[in-house]
Amino acid sequence: MAHIELGNDAPGIRGLMQYRPETGKVLNELAEVLLRDENSLTRGERELIATYVSTLNQCRFCSASHKAFAAAQLPGGHELVAHACSDLDTAPISDKLKALLHIAGHVQQIGTAVTEKDVALARDAGATDIEIHDTVLIAAAFCMYNRYVDGLGTFAPDDPASYDQMAQLITTQGYAPRP
Amino acid sequence: MAHIELGNDAPGIRGLMQYRPETGKVLNELAEVLLRDENSLTRGERELIATYVSTLNQCRFCSASHKAFAAAQLPGGHELVAHACSDLDTAPISDKLKALLHIAGHVQQIGTAVTEKDVALARDAGATDIEIHDTVLIAAAFCMYNRYVDGLGTFAPDDPASYDQMAQLITTQGYAPRP
Repeated sequence: MAHIELGNDAPGIRGLMQYRPETGKVLNELAEVLLRDENSLTRGERELIATYVSTLNQCRFCSASHKAFAAAQLPGGHELVAHACSDLDTAPISDKLKALLHIAGHVQQIGTAVTEKDVALARDAGATDIEIHDTVLIAAAFCMYNRYVDGLGTFAPDDPASYDQMAQLITTQGYAPRP
Repeated sequence: MAHIELGNDAPGIRGLMQYRPETGKVLNELAEVLLRDENSLTRGERELIATYVSTLNQCRFCSASHKAFAAAQLPGGHELVAHACSDLDTAPISDKLKALLHIAGHVQQIGTAVTEKDVALARDAGATDIEIHDTVLIAAAFCMYNRYVDGLGTFAPDDPASYDQMAQLITTQGYAPRP
């Protein structure tokens, strides 16, 4: 049960967004611009960064939901996402994406853990400055979403099917209506 | 020097927001709704939560700037803010604000560090559910802003006067234009 009385039974961040629509609106807009707007990183790649950080933060709701969103939008599906999150070095993804996930892992610890060498490795693997910027911000944003969801003690469904249902909704309708 | 070429010489998050206005716009809107919109917590109290978390995250730019924003909007000014951030228990602030800052400190560690007892103590000291919600989200948001600013290696001015100038701007014009 959540730490506060939400007045609804939606899981994870969805219950919080219904409880406080003023902040929910902006949080959804942020997810939309970071994870779905036009970008040289695919939507699947950006959802993988979100999943990777949520897994490191051990946030059950966010890691399960973004895992489903990433799997729905990456050719390798659930298997690839699980592989990248459990053993990044051997995962069958590009060196560029590996280097970006490595940066995301350092952001998860603390901002100053990102080194010039991390950034140079990503650039050598073909990452642009915008891709490095967006990776850092996606990783940082999930350090917020994860803490918000767990800091208020929300619940996460056990049934994997509920996350696949959410994935169906997010990949077709997005996080927020765009003007 | 920042890890990426920003094309401007603005410090901290301001340089990042100029570099990437698409995300900068939403990040400013989030700061506006969290720290300045109508709320039973004063603007000064909310800026103190932001400062407290930024100090724990050792983010030089965010802690110095929000310290100036909090000081400009709290009767105790800079001295009170410094006292609360260095020794919360003895700071001359209400028991409610102390309990909320205690929750914020746990959010800074990790979401699951917030306990039912933390929340009960805040409630016993008079905090409402909305105030507890907003405290958790402000603390979580600064775990994002701090990682964004430091993860991209931005610079923080040494001169305290530059933060007081920013405070003048923020307290009169806000973070983002509101409709």
